[in-house]
Amino acid sequence: MAEKETEISDLGEFGLIDRLTKDFPISNPETKLGVGDDAAILTFGEKDVVVSTDLLLEGIHFDLRYVPLQHLGYKAAIVNFSDIYAMNARPRQITVSLGVSSRFTVEHIETLYAGIRRACEIYSVDMVGGDTSASVTGLVISITCIGDVNKGEEVRRSGAKPTDVICVSGDLGAAFMGLQLLERENSVAAGQKDFQPNFAGKEYILERQLKPEARKDIIELLHKEGIKPTSMIDVSDGLSSELLHICKASNVGCRVYEDKLPIDYQTALMAEEFNMNLVTAAMNGGEDYELLFTVPLTDHEKIEKLQGVKMIGYVTKPELGAALVTRDGAEIPIKAQGWNAFNKV
Amino acid sequence: MAEKETEISDLGEFGLIDRLTKDFPISNPETKLGVGDDAAILTFGEKDVVVSTDLLLEGIHFDLRYVPLQHLGYKAAIVNFSDIYAMNARPRQITVSLGVSSRFTVEHIETLYAGIRRACEIYSVDMVGGDTSASVTGLVISITCIGDVNKGEEVRRSGAKPTDVICVSGDLGAAFMGLQLLERENSVAAGQKDFQPNFAGKEYILERQLKPEARKDIIELLHKEGIKPTSMIDVSDGLSSELLHICKASNVGCRVYEDKLPIDYQTALMAEEFNMNLVTAAMNGGEDYELLFTVPLTDHEKIEKLQGVKMIGYVTKPELGAALVTRDGAEIPIKAQGWNAFNKV
Repeated sequence: MAEKETEISDLGEFGLIDRLTKDFPISNPETKLGVGDDAAILTFGEKDVVVSTDLLLEGIHFDLRYVPLQHLGYKAAIVNFSDIYAMNARPRQITVSLGVSSRFTVEHIETLYAGIRRACEIYSVDMVGGDTSASVTGLVISITCIGDVNKGEEVRRSGAKPTDVICVSGDLGAAFMGLQLLERENSVAAGQKDFQPNFAGKEYILERQLKPEARKDIIELLHKEGIKPTSMIDVSDGLSSELLHICKASNVGCRVYEDKLPIDYQTALMAEEFNMNLVTAAMNGGEDYELLFTVPLTDHEKIEKLQGVKMIGYVTKPELGAALVTRDGAEIPIKAQGWNAFNKV
Repeated sequence: MAEKETEISDLGEFGLIDRLTKDFPISNPETKLGVGDDAAILTFGEKDVVVSTDLLLEGIHFDLRYVPLQHLGYKAAIVNFSDIYAMNARPRQITVSLGVSSRFTVEHIETLYAGIRRACEIYSVDMVGGDTSASVTGLVISITCIGDVNKGEEVRRSGAKPTDVICVSGDLGAAFMGLQLLERENSVAAGQKDFQPNFAGKEYILERQLKPEARKDIIELLHKEGIKPTSMIDVSDGLSSELLHICKASNVGCRVYEDKLPIDYQTALMAEEFNMNLVTAAMNGGEDYELLFTVPLTDHEKIEKLQGVKMIGYVTKPELGAALVTRDGAEIPIKAQGWNAFNKV
C-alpha cells in the first residue's frame, strides 16, 4: 500500500459511496432517480422490464493475482449486460454492491469502479444504486442489471423448435485458453522477482479473458435484419451447458457439428501448446459471452450473410437428445462440463 | 453435520437452484417470467419501477452462532422490502444471490430459503432470479428488490420543508438491545455445554433483532388516511443517521425531543440492566426498520389519531442544524453514530 493512499475507514461507508458515485453520468431518460435514496426510481412506460443478477466472489470467480481491478470491474458489469442482451432486451441500469476487506484502499475501489463506469459509458447503462460494506474475507461484487424490451419482443430459452438452425456469435474457447495462459504465467512467476510474462501474439485470448464484451452489436444486427431468434442464451458456462439449457427449456434435442465450431487461431495455437483438446475448450471453456440462438430454417439465407454469426447445427425432436457430430460423423452426447463453482476441488 | 444431509457438490449449481426455487409461488401479475432464464421479465404498465439492493456478509452483518438460518433469510428479505416501502412504493419481486461455503449442506440452504420464502409469502413478493455460488469464505447474501409506485406518488428523502412535523412508526432501540442480549448470552455460553440462555420477558427485543418486520401496514394506513409524507426513509442505521440523511437531502435542519422518542419498556429495562444510555440506544442503535417521515403541519391532527405513529419533532431551516432537545431543554447536535461497517474495530 503506497503511503498516500486513503484508508476506507477514513471516509466511512457514506463518504465512500459519495466519492465513488459522485460523477456517474445518467444517460437514459428511463432513469428518473439514481443513487442517493432508499431506492432508485425508473420509468419504462409500456415496456417490459427485465432483471438479472450476478455474484462474483474472490477466490471463486476471479484471482486478484492476475486480474487488474479495473478489468474486473469492467467484466463484472459486462457479464450482467450479456444476460440482458440474451433476452433480446437492452440494459439500462445497474446496482453495484461491494464487500471490501481492509486490505483495499479507497484508491483500489476507485479503480474497480472506473472499470464499471467505463462499461456503463460504452453500453449507455446508468449506475443507480448499491451497497458498500466491509468484508472480513475476500472481495465480493454483486451486480443487478435492469433492462427493457418492447412487449412481445423478448427471446426466452424456451422457444426453439425442431429444424431451427442453431447459431453462435463470435468464437469460442478463447477466454478459457486466456485463463490457462494467465495461470501458467502466474505459477512460473511465483517467487521470481521482476518476472516479465511473455504475452506477445496472445493478446486476443488474454483480452477475451480479462476484458470481454457483451454482444450488443449482434442484437442490433439481428434487429436491423429483421431476424427474431426463437430462443437465445449467452455463453457464460460453456457452449455444452448452454445448449442443454435451451434443449431442456424448449423440450428439444440438437445436433452441433465439430467442424462448424468457430475457433480463433490463437485459441487453437494455445491449445496445441498446452496439449489440450481444442473441441473441449470450445464446448466447455465458458466465459465467452457470445450469444447462442436458434432461428427458423427460413431465416437460413439471412443468417448466412451476417458477419460474425455462424450456423453450427440444428434443433431436433427431444427424443434424439443433444449430440456433437464429430468430423468423422460420430455422435457424442453433449454433457455439461462447464464451469461449476460447486465442483469438489 | 448430520449423516444424511446432502452436500451441495452432489447437486451442483443448477441442481441446487432447481431444488431451491422449484415451488416458489408467483403472486403478482406484474411477474411475467420468473426463475429459469437469463433474466426475469416484469410488466408494470405505466407505473414507475423502484429498485434497491442490500448485501449481507457473515462476520459483518450477522453471526451464525446466534442467528438461526431461517430468521436470517427472513430478515435479509425484510430489510429490502423496508427500503421499497420507504419510497411509498410496494415491493413486487426479489432476486437472491448466495455465496455458500462448503461447510453448508443443501439442507442448510433450504432452511435459509424457507425464511426468504416465508417473507415473500407474507409480503406478497415474488422470487424471480438469482445466482448461487460456492464461497471460499463466509456466507454472502445479496438481495435486490424491485417494486412499483404510481407516477408522482413516490416519497423521496428530499422533500422535507421547515415547519413539517417529524414522525416515526413503532419504537426504537429494541433491535439494538436484542443484539446486546444475544451477544452477552453467547459469550456466557461459550465453552459451557448444554447452556440454556434465559430469554424470559425479553421476547420482544429478541424478535426485533432476529425477525424484524417491514412497515407495510404504516404505508397502507397513511394511504388510507390520505396522508402523503413530504419525505421518508427507513430506520436501518439508526434514527440519528436517518435524520441527517433527510436533513442533507432536503437541505433543512430539525429538532427532535428526547421525551417524545418511542421506546418499549423491554428496551428500557434491558438498557438499565446493561447500564447503557437508553437515548443513545434509541437514537443510534439501528436495525429498527421503522419508517421516519415528515408531514406538513396541516396534517398534525390526522397523525395524532394514527395508531403506531409518533410525532417526535419538527423540521427547521438548514442554518439551525439538527439537534436533540433533552428533557431539561438543552440542545445536543445530532451526529451519525449508527452502525458503520467500515469503522475500525
